[in-house]
Amino acid sequence: MENVKGLQCISCGRVFPADDRVFTCPECGEKGILDVIYDYDYIKKNISRETLSQNRDYSIWRYLPFLPVQKESRRTPLKVGWTPLYYPQKLMEVLGLSRLFLKDDGLNPTASLKDRASAIAVVKAGEEGFETVACSSTGNAASSLAGNAAAMGLKSVIFVPQRAPQGKVAQLLIFGATVISVQGNYEDAFHLSAQAIAHWGWYNRNAAINPYLVEGKKTVTLEICEQLNWQVPDWAIFSVGDGCTIAGAWKGFKDLYQAGFIDKLPKMAGVQAEGCCPITRAFLSGNPLEPMEENTLADSIAVGVPRNPDKALNAIRESKGTMINVTDEEILQAMKLLGHTCGVFGEPAGVTGLAGLKKLVAGGLISRDELVVTCITGNGLKDVNNAVKAAGAPIKVDPDLGELKKKLAGLVRF
Amino acid sequence: MENVKGLQCISCGRVFPADDRVFTCPECGEKGILDVIYDYDYIKKNISRETLSQNRDYSIWRYLPFLPVQKESRRTPLKVGWTPLYYPQKLMEVLGLSRLFLKDDGLNPTASLKDRASAIAVVKAGEEGFETVACSSTGNAASSLAGNAAAMGLKSVIFVPQRAPQGKVAQLLIFGATVISVQGNYEDAFHLSAQAIAHWGWYNRNAAINPYLVEGKKTVTLEICEQLNWQVPDWAIFSVGDGCTIAGAWKGFKDLYQAGFIDKLPKMAGVQAEGCCPITRAFLSGNPLEPMEENTLADSIAVGVPRNPDKALNAIRESKGTMINVTDEEILQAMKLLGHTCGVFGEPAGVTGLAGLKKLVAGGLISRDELVVTCITGNGLKDVNNAVKAAGAPIKVDPDLGELKKKLAGLVRF
Repeated sequence: MENVKGLQCISCGRVFPADDRVFTCPECGEKGILDVIYDYDYIKKNISRETLSQNRDYSIWRYLPFLPVQKESRRTPLKVGWTPLYYPQKLMEVLGLSRLFLKDDGLNPTASLKDRASAIAVVKAGEEGFETVACSSTGNAASSLAGNAAAMGLKSVIFVPQRAPQGKVAQLLIFGATVISVQGNYEDAFHLSAQAIAHWGWYNRNAAINPYLVEGKKTVTLEICEQLNWQVPDWAIFSVGDGCTIAGAWKGFKDLYQAGFIDKLPKMAGVQAEGCCPITRAFLSGNPLEPMEENTLADSIAVGVPRNPDKALNAIRESKGTMINVTDEEILQAMKLLGHTCGVFGEPAGVTGLAGLKKLVAGGLISRDELVVTCITGNGLKDVNNAVKAAGAPIKVDPDLGELKKKLAGLVRF
Repeated sequence: MENVKGLQCISCGRVFPADDRVFTCPECGEKGILDVIYDYDYIKKNISRETLSQNRDYSIWRYLPFLPVQKESRRTPLKVGWTPLYYPQKLMEVLGLSRLFLKDDGLNPTASLKDRASAIAVVKAGEEGFETVACSSTGNAASSLAGNAAAMGLKSVIFVPQRAPQGKVAQLLIFGATVISVQGNYEDAFHLSAQAIAHWGWYNRNAAINPYLVEGKKTVTLEICEQLNWQVPDWAIFSVGDGCTIAGAWKGFKDLYQAGFIDKLPKMAGVQAEGCCPITRAFLSGNPLEPMEENTLADSIAVGVPRNPDKALNAIRESKGTMINVTDEEILQAMKLLGHTCGVFGEPAGVTGLAGLKKLVAGGLISRDELVVTCITGNGLKDVNNAVKAAGAPIKVDPDLGELKKKLAGLVRF
């Protein structure tokens, strides 16, 4: 990889060569998460705003010089990335914003932002000769890994916690994954997957451990900046679970800045669910992270023991951003608000950023004229039970116009 | 609309001006479905292969001169169309084909091909000053209408039959639609919607009745041909319910042919579920269509009294194509096959075309070297219960490596 200088430990600062199969710093252990260090001179020589404007590959691979993969590596055949960036008039009116953009990452091939990371995972697994990839996940990382593995012809083994919604599990099985439903919480699933990966020698796609996955996630902000014609948002709002997504989003902005594509950086706002907010708590208190129970319906961000709090906390702090919590009720309200005003159906974790944005605007931290972007990180079809909670039930009628008139009278005005 | 000459009755051949609010032929009644007649000279002057190659609007609107809307009309803000066309190596090996392309239309904004028709519906409703749009649907037409209406700021009223899957209904409600669950089958829902539309004066998005919707659906084949660099498939395979989708697909090929973009036409193959196959029966027997019960799990194509059999039958016959039925078991197998080999998750009706293709190849009607395209018309996340039937259940284990080793032994080899 001519564009990569090495992997740097975010704890001790040591740099390791990128072709080692090292996932965490040998000195610092689990705390020693690694960060990919690029050669920005190489990047500048190989990609520019102008070459991008001519590039008709509308997928994450248009940013190849920014990605930690070999140029000639086999890639997932699925079309990952280049999801739409909407400018939602009615939603802006409701929120009281004049320049809001909404990235719909539920339109990725397996219906979540996680496809961006899994696309990198399967390429790296292929580069290194693995035949089986594995991860533990509350759902989206898993389905994206299983889908991209199937498309690449790799086997996948997925560890899910007991509470993973049926839709997400069905998707895994359809993709041919071996699915292990661990009778416990996410933490139990994570530990068992780590032991099994060590035992069988599979490729490890656990996002916080594998330094390459954040690099896939960062493509969401590469796209946002290009779609905004290289304007930089004042605020970028993301939901936060494990911490990897907001860390990746921040890495995207920083890489673009270092390579001279943009001339400033945004503030990052991270939003957690009140029932599971260990990273918000650590941010606000300044104390080390302490685990929490996982009491939220936003299952994709219900992570009581996040694996990557440091990268996430660094992103918020470096960017001079903030963190905020929202209740499950506020999340359900955000699902309705998004659907009613934009025709976009987000899953609970997918709209948590939007719920937080609403609060940040109401609280005066984000003002009307700031340029704001938030991302819907997963499709609501993945978790229909919660959608039903948010949306209510249909009006049942017999096939008779008289009955329909009676039932609609008073209810709806046309 | 400078590109449209008029609306022609497919029964008696009379042509009506396109600015009349006439949906069916006043002479022929319900049988008199209308077809949009274009001015191909106008089209040739306003769009070409070359202008398309420079056009960076990757949505259905890139084909504006082929569409029955006014140039300056307000359009749905959702990004409809330009879904990926895959070249699925492993699937080709399994099927015994050397040139198969797979269009994943589940990646439309509300996760089905129907977004193409609903995008046109909301534009037409807007052009004609309506504030409320309505339809009856087994689900996908409905959710696409509700989503696109919400994005446009229109109200929607949706009539669904009792059996519509929960995921599809939840999506409607999230989009703010007034959802009427008609306690009966699709036919009952259709009739009640027709009465209610007449009574309240809403815009009618029932696809077989509204002549403009087929024109939205045809964009799927406009895209396929452009994505194939204007090669024409030997065979195009679609699942068939109401008949409108395959009719639209055929219209797309014919319009491209008339406008000189392609130099031949494909054969169309229509696939129905054995438990509800009135159009196949009419095609094979040559007798007029007779209604059937709706006994299939492929709910999106379970239409016992199709509204548009004539356009569908014309498409198959004119193209010298064929029709075939598949069992529910074959549909479930096709879901697994698609997921395992391609990482694409289709709903039952969405993979019915693929199930039929498998049979047509096995039966020798389609041969190894023919250029074949089929379309996955809807995302499997819309109907998770059937996915569970197809995929089975995960392996449950306690968080213990010893137990995991025991459970995996014999089951899986890594």
